[in-house]
Amino acid sequence: MKLVPLFDKVVLKPLVAEETTKSGIVLPGQAKEKPQQAEVIAVGPGGLVDGKEVTMQVKVGDKVIFSKYSGTEIETGEDDQKYVIVKQNDILAVIE
Amino acid sequence: MKLVPLFDKVVLKPLVAEETTKSGIVLPGQAKEKPQQAEVIAVGPGGLVDGKEVTMQVKVGDKVIFSKYSGTEIETGEDDQKYVIVKQNDILAVIE
Amino acid sequence: MKLVPLFDKVVLKPLVAEETTKSGIVLPGQAKEKPQQAEVIAVGPGGLVDGKEVTMQVKVGDKVIFSKYSGTEIETGEDDQKYVIVKQNDILAVIE
Amino acid sequence: MKLVPLFDKVVLKPLVAEETTKSGIVLPGQAKEKPQQAEVIAVGPGGLVDGKEVTMQVKVGDKVIFSKYSGTEIETGEDDQKYVIVKQNDILAVIE
Amino acid sequence: MKLVPLFDKVVLKPLVAEETTKSGIVLPGQAKEKPQQAEVIAVGPGGLVDGKEVTMQVKVGDKVIFSKYSGTEIETGEDDQKYVIVKQNDILAVIE
Amino acid sequence: MKLVPLFDKVVLKPLVAEETTKSGIVLPGQAKEKPQQAEVIAVGPGGLVDGKEVTMQVKVGDKVIFSKYSGTEIETGEDDQKYVIVKQNDILAVIE
Amino acid sequence: MKLVPLFDKVVLKPLVAEETTKSGIVLPGQAKEKPQQAEVIAVGPGGLVDGKEVTMQVKVGDKVIFSKYSGTEIETGEDDQKYVIVKQNDILAVIE
Repeated sequence: MKLVPLFDKVVLKPLVAEETTKSGIVLPGQAKEKPQQAEVIAVGPGGLVDGKEVTMQVKVGDKVIFSKYSGTEIETGEDDQKYVIVKQNDILAVIE
Repeated sequence: MKLVPLFDKVVLKPLVAEETTKSGIVLPGQAKEKPQQAEVIAVGPGGLVDGKEVTMQVKVGDKVIFSKYSGTEIETGEDDQKYVIVKQNDILAVIE
Repeated sequence: MKLVPLFDKVVLKPLVAEETTKSGIVLPGQAKEKPQQAEVIAVGPGGLVDGKEVTMQVKVGDKVIFSKYSGTEIETGEDDQKYVIVKQNDILAVIE
Repeated sequence: MKLVPLFDKVVLKPLVAEETTKSGIVLPGQAKEKPQQAEVIAVGPGGLVDGKEVTMQVKVGDKVIFSKYSGTEIETGEDDQKYVIVKQNDILAVIE
Repeated sequence: MKLVPLFDKVVLKPLVAEETTKSGIVLPGQAKEKPQQAEVIAVGPGGLVDGKEVTMQVKVGDKVIFSKYSGTEIETGEDDQKYVIVKQNDILAVIE
Repeated sequence: MKLVPLFDKVVLKPLVAEETTKSGIVLPGQAKEKPQQAEVIAVGPGGLVDGKEVTMQVKVGDKVIFSKYSGTEIETGEDDQKYVIVKQNDILAVIE
Repeated sequence: MKLVPLFDKVVLKPLVAEETTKSGIVLPGQAKEKPQQAEVIAVGPGGLVDGKEVTMQVKVGDKVIFSKYSGTEIETGEDDQKYVIVKQNDILAVIE
C-alpha cells in the first residue's frame, strides 16, 4: 500500500527508539508512548493550501522531530507499523 | 439517489475492512469503529471556497485515507451503506 | 409569510422521511430526530459576505443534504412546519 | 431616547407574538422565551467593519428573523420594552 | 490622571442610573450590576489596528450603549469612579 | 540584565501603588493582586508582526494601563521586581 | 544529533539557573519548574510561514526569555538535556 499525501501533508513513520536506563535495562514500552522522532515516508505536493502558498521543505528519508498530539495515526493493516499523517507545519525540525 | 457535493466537499464511502486477528478470527465489528479508508463517490466543483481558491485533487474511484472525526455521516435510506461527506482538506492521502 | 434570506443564507424545509424497518413497521418519530435532507425554500443574494465573494449554487426546489447541528431552526407559526436557515456552506450536497 | 448604532449594528425590537394553542388558549409567556421575530428600529451606517466592507441590507421598519442567542439585550428604562442590538450578519431573513 | 487610549480603544465612564421601581422605591444597587450606558471620556487615535484601518466614530461626551462583559474595568484610585476601557467595536450604539 | 523585546512586545514594570483605605490603613498586599498600572521599561521594534504592520506607540518611561491577565510575568532574579512582557495591543491607555 | 528547525521555529536550551534563597540555600529544583530563560541553539530559515513573511530576529547563541507553556519539549536521548522548540513569536525578548 502506497500513500500519496494531499496538499501539505506528510506521512511519517514514528521511530521507536529502544531506551536504556542508566542501569542498563531496555524499556521499549516507555519510548512507545511519545514517539517524537520519525522518518518521512511520503510528502504531499504543497502548492495552494487553504489559500496560502506552501513550499515543501522535507523530503522522503528525512529524520524529523514532530509535534506530539499533532496529526492522525493510521494503520495500513499489512504490518504492525503505525504511521502518522501530519501537516508539514507540525514538523518541528529535521535531524541531521 | 445521486449526491452532487457543493464547493470543496467530497462524498466518501467508508471501506469496512474485515480484520483478522493473528489467531485467524474475523472481527468485522472492530473495524467498523474507525473507518479511515474510503472510496471517493462524488467530488464537488472546487473553485472559490470561503474566499479561497480550491483545486480538487481527488477523483471518483480514488481510495483515500480520511481524518477520523471529520465530516458528516449520512445514510441514504436506500441501502444499509453509510456515507461521509468531508471537505477535501480532511482527506489525508490517496492510496495507490 | 415569505422569508427573504440575507447574504449567503438559505431557508430549508427539512424532509421528514417516513422510515420503514425491515419488519415493515413505519417509524416516523425516529426520522424526525435528525432531518438531514431538506428542500430549498428561499436563497439569499450572495455577494460580499464577511468580506468574501460568495456565489449561490443552490436554487429554490433543490433537494439537499445539510449538516446536522448547523443553522437556526424557526417556526412561522402558520403551520406546524419547522424551517432551518443555514449558511450555504452548511449545505453538503444536492440530491439529484 | 434614540439609539444610533455603530458600524454594521442594528437595533431590533423583538415581536412578542401571542401564541394560541390548538385548544384556543393564549400563551403569551411561552412566546416571550424565544423571540426570533423582530422589527428593525435603527440601522448602523455599515462601511468598513473590522477591515471588511459591509453594505447594510435591512432598513427601519423591516420585519426580520434573527438568530437566537445573538446580540445584546438592552432596556431603555423608559418603557418595559426590551431591545436587542445585533450585527447585521445575525439577521437571517427579512419577512415579506 | 488623564488617560490617552491606544489604537481603537475608548475610555468609558459607566452611568449608574438610579432605578425606581413601580412602587417608587429607588434601587441604586440593582442598576450597578449591569451598567450598559456610559459616557465617552477619551478616544484612541484609530488608524491601523491589527492590520486593519479603523476610523473612530465616537467622540468625548457621547452617551453610548456598550456590550456587557466587554472591556477592562479600571479604577484610578483618585475617586470611587470605575472606568471601562473597550475597543470601539464593543460600543453598540450612541444615544441621542 | 537588559531585555530587548522582539516584534511588538513591550516590557512593563507593574506599579504597586500603596493603597490607603478610608480609615487610613495602608494595604500594599491588596494592590499587589491586580497591578494594572505599569511603567514601560523596553519597547520592541514593531514592523511586520504576524504578517501585519505594527507601529509602536508607547515609549520607555510611559506610565500605562494594561490589561489584567495579558502578558507573561517574568523575574530577572537580580531583584525582587517582577516584570510583565505584553504585546503592545494589550496596553489600553497611556496615563498623562 | 543536530536539529535544523523548519520555517520560523527555533530550538532553545532552557537555562536552569541555580536559585539561592536569602538564607543562602541553593534550590535547583524550584528553578527547574519554570525555565523561562534559554539559549538559542538553532534557528529556522523564516520566509513564508502560513502565508505570512517572517524575518528571523534571533541568532544562535542569543540568551532569550520565552513564553512558559509555549513550544514542544524534546529530549535527544544523548544527554539529560531537554530542549524546547518554539515559534519565534513565542520568544518574548533577548537578554543583553
